[in-house]
Amino acid sequence: MLLHIDLESSAPLYIQIYQQIKDKIHNNELKTNEKLTSKRQLAEMNQVSENTVMNAYNQLLTEGYIYSKERQGYFVADVKLQFDLPDLPEMKEERDTTPEIMYNLTRSNPDKDLFPYSVFSKLYRQLMHLPPEQLLTETDAQGLYELRVNLQSYLSQSRGVPCTAEQIIIGPSTEYLISILLNILKNKPTIGIEDPGYNRFKQLFIRSDISVTAIPVDEMGVEIDALEKSAADLMIVTSNHQFPTGSIMPLPRRQKLLNWANGKDNRYIIENDYDSEFKYSGIPIPSLKYLDQQQKVVYLGSFTRNVSPGIRMSYMVLPESLLKQYKETYRSYSSPLSTSEQWVIRNFLNDGHFTTHLNRSRTFYKKKRDRMIQSIQKVDAKAEIYGENAGLHLLMKPSTAFDGTHFKKMALKEGIRLSLLSDYATKVVPGQDNTLFISFSNIPKKDIENLIQDLYILIKKCAI
Amino acid sequence: MLLHIDLESSAPLYIQIYQQIKDKIHNNELKTNEKLTSKRQLAEMNQVSENTVMNAYNQLLTEGYIYSKERQGYFVADVKLQFDLPDLPEMKEERDTTPEIMYNLTRSNPDKDLFPYSVFSKLYRQLMHLPPEQLLTETDAQGLYELRVNLQSYLSQSRGVPCTAEQIIIGPSTEYLISILLNILKNKPTIGIEDPGYNRFKQLFIRSDISVTAIPVDEMGVEIDALEKSAADLMIVTSNHQFPTGSIMPLPRRQKLLNWANGKDNRYIIENDYDSEFKYSGIPIPSLKYLDQQQKVVYLGSFTRNVSPGIRMSYMVLPESLLKQYKETYRSYSSPLSTSEQWVIRNFLNDGHFTTHLNRSRTFYKKKRDRMIQSIQKVDAKAEIYGENAGLHLLMKPSTAFDGTHFKKMALKEGIRLSLLSDYATKVVPGQDNTLFISFSNIPKKDIENLIQDLYILIKKCAI
Repeated sequence: MLLHIDLESSAPLYIQIYQQIKDKIHNNELKTNEKLTSKRQLAEMNQVSENTVMNAYNQLLTEGYIYSKERQGYFVADVKLQFDLPDLPEMKEERDTTPEIMYNLTRSNPDKDLFPYSVFSKLYRQLMHLPPEQLLTETDAQGLYELRVNLQSYLSQSRGVPCTAEQIIIGPSTEYLISILLNILKNKPTIGIEDPGYNRFKQLFIRSDISVTAIPVDEMGVEIDALEKSAADLMIVTSNHQFPTGSIMPLPRRQKLLNWANGKDNRYIIENDYDSEFKYSGIPIPSLKYLDQQQKVVYLGSFTRNVSPGIRMSYMVLPESLLKQYKETYRSYSSPLSTSEQWVIRNFLNDGHFTTHLNRSRTFYKKKRDRMIQSIQKVDAKAEIYGENAGLHLLMKPSTAFDGTHFKKMALKEGIRLSLLSDYATKVVPGQDNTLFISFSNIPKKDIENLIQDLYILIKKCAI
Repeated sequence: MLLHIDLESSAPLYIQIYQQIKDKIHNNELKTNEKLTSKRQLAEMNQVSENTVMNAYNQLLTEGYIYSKERQGYFVADVKLQFDLPDLPEMKEERDTTPEIMYNLTRSNPDKDLFPYSVFSKLYRQLMHLPPEQLLTETDAQGLYELRVNLQSYLSQSRGVPCTAEQIIIGPSTEYLISILLNILKNKPTIGIEDPGYNRFKQLFIRSDISVTAIPVDEMGVEIDALEKSAADLMIVTSNHQFPTGSIMPLPRRQKLLNWANGKDNRYIIENDYDSEFKYSGIPIPSLKYLDQQQKVVYLGSFTRNVSPGIRMSYMVLPESLLKQYKETYRSYSSPLSTSEQWVIRNFLNDGHFTTHLNRSRTFYKKKRDRMIQSIQKVDAKAEIYGENAGLHLLMKPSTAFDGTHFKKMALKEGIRLSLLSDYATKVVPGQDNTLFISFSNIPKKDIENLIQDLYILIKKCAI
C-alpha cells in the first residue's frame, strides 16, 4: 500500500497515514476484513519510521476502523458509515485572563520556597510500591482510613481535638465539608457568621437557601449576647485566630459560647481552625473542640495553608450524634479524593515530615512577620498592628487617615492586590476602611521592606 | 539535666524525654526563658542518640513548650497553664467491616493487572520537575486548563464530542458534576431516568428535593413516546451503551430524543458516556452530543472504568448557554481536584499513553468477554446473552427459571456479589429477575469458566 506522504505538510506524518487509510476504508478501496500491510512493510514502502506507522495504526484502532488479531496483523473493521466520526469544525478558544498581580496580600498561601520537594519526590516515588488493592481502589466516603488514623493522632496531640478516626471525614475543601454537614442536619439552620469574618462560605449558603446572620466580634471574639439574641442555630467561629482580626478567644468566652450551644438540642458550632498551627509565642491554643463536653462542636482543618493549596484536602471531625446521620446518608458513596494523593499525605504525616515541616514553617514565617512589623514601625512608628501573634496575616492601621477605596485601586494599578478590614465586615464600623489586611506568608522576605514603603507612598497620596 | 530513661518501657525514648521535660516545665522546675541543655549534651548525659533528643525537642517545639533562637539553642516558653493540652483519653476505635467478597460482579472496575504501573511511576516522578507555580497552586473551578485542552482533543477525536476546553469542567465524580449542573439550572427540573437504569444518582436527587420519573427503555433505548408524556425536563441517558441492557441507540431514535429536547427552552439531556470506549467490533459510536445542533446535551465521562477508580476524575461538557450560568456561580471557586493528580492525568493523555492504554484494555477485555460467552454457552447453550458488543458487563438469561432473590442470597454466601436486571428497574417486567447482570472486567480470566459453572450449580438449586 503506497501512500502519499507530504514532508512539507504541517500535518504530522502519522496523521497523514491515518487519514489516507481511513479514506481508503470509506471509499471501499480497502474492504471489510481485508488484511492491512504489516507495519514494517508499510514503513519501508513509504520511507517513514515503523513508529510513525504504529501511531497511525493505533489511531485507527482507537477509532475502530481496523482491528488486530494476535500474530496475524491488522484487518479492516466492518464500518457502518452512518456512524462515522466526521471531522469536527475548529472551535475558537477563548481563555479567561486576569491582570498581572505582583503581590497578592489577600491570600495566605504558603511560601513556595518552603515546600519540601525532596520529601514529596520520595513520597510520590514510593506510591508505586503500594499493593494494587491499596492504590487502585476508591476509598470510602470518609476518606482513606490509614490517613484518618494519622490525622486523629495529629489532631489529638497537636490541636487538642479528642476524636476517633471514625469521626473524621476528609474532603477536597472546607466548603465541601460544610455542604455535607448542611445535608445531614435535619432542619435547615440559620447560620451565624462572625462580623468581620471569613466570607467565602456565603455563596454556598445562598445556593443552599440558608439564611445567614452576622454576629459582631470584639477583641475576645464573637459577642455572646448578640449571638443569644440572634436566630442562629449554627455558629461558625475562628476561635483560635479570629479571621480577620487575629484575636484569640479567651477561656471564659469559650465556655460561654459552648453554653450557648448546649442551651438547645439543634444548636451546633463549627470551629474553623484555619491557621492556628502558626503561633509565634507561648504554647498553642488547644481547640474549642477540646472543651466540648456535650458534642456540639464540628471541627474543621485543612492542608491548604500549611502545605500547599495545590493539595485539595480538608478534614472535619463530626460529633457522634451527627456521625450517625452522616453514615445513613453517605455510607454508599466513595471519597471524592484520589487514593494516591491520600496515601502521599498519609505517609507525609506518618513518617514525621508534617511535624518537621510545621516547625520549619513556623520559624520561617516568624521571620517574615518580624520583618513586616519592623518595616511598618520604621516608616510609621505610630501605626497600630493587630493579630500578629499567630497565623499568616496581620492587620495594620496607619497613623494617617486615607481614602480606602481609592487606595485599593491605586495599589491594584501597581500590581498589589490587598483588602481592608471593611471588606470582611457586614456592618462596617468606622476605622475598618483604614485598616489594612496583609497576608505576609507569600511575600518574599527581601521584598517586605520595599513593599511597605510603596504602600505608604500610596497611603500618603490618598491621605484625607 | 538528667532524665529517667526506662529502656524496658513500651513508650518510645523520645516520648519519655518529651514527657519529662514537659512535666519539669509544668511544675516549674524549668522556668520561663531558661535555656535547655543542648541536644548533644542531653544525649550524652542520658546515653541516648542525638536524634532521639531532637525528636523530643521537636515535639516540644510543635506544642509550644519551648522555642528556639538561632545559634543559641532552645528555651522554655511562657506557658499559660490554663491553655495546656492535657493527655486525651484513649478513644475506642470501631471500624466498619464488610463480609468477604471473592467476586463482585456488580461493579465494572478495571482489572488491576491492566494498570500501567511503569508509565504512572514515570509520570509521578516527573511531577517534581514542574515549576512551583504550576505544582503548588490550586487550579480554577473548571480544573487544570492544560488537562482540559488534552481532554478536548481526546473527546473530539475519539468520542465525536465537539467542544472547546472552556466548555469542560473537571470534577471528582459524575455525581459531583450533576450536582453542579442542578445548581446552575434556574428552575429545579423533573429528571427522567432510564428504566431499567443506573440508580446511583437517585440519592443525590432526593437530597436536592428533585422529583424523578422513570422512562421505560426498549431495545433501542429510552422510549420517546413515554418521555413526551412525562413531566421530565432533564433526561439522563446512556445512549452509547445503555446501562444495564447494553443496547446502542440507533440514529433515528437519537434524532427523536434531540427533537424532544429542542421542543422546549428548559429541556436538556445528560449523556452519561460511561464505558463506550470499549466497543468490541465495528467503529465506535459517536456521542449523542455530536448530533446536538441546538446545544441541549450535557456530556459526562470519567476515568473510573478505563484507568482506575482510585483516580477520582470525571468531566462534563456544558453547552454554551449553561456555561454562562456556570461561570456566574463558580467563577471565584477553586477546583476540588489536587493539582498534582491533574498534571499526572494531563501528561498521561498528552504523551499518548491513554490511547495506548485504551487499545490494550479493549483487546484484554474482549478476551474476557469471549471467555465469558464461551463458558456460558458450554453449560447452557440456550442461555440468552445481551449487551455483549460493548462495555464491561453483559446480561445473561439462563434457560432454566429460578428464584432470583434466593439465588442472590446463596451466591453472596459463596462470596459472589451479583445483581439481577430487576435490581435496576423501577417497574419490574417479567423475566428481569431471571436475568443476571455480570461485570466481567474485574474477574481473573482463568476463573471465568469455574465461576460460571458455580453460578449454574446455584441456579439449578434455585430452579422453580
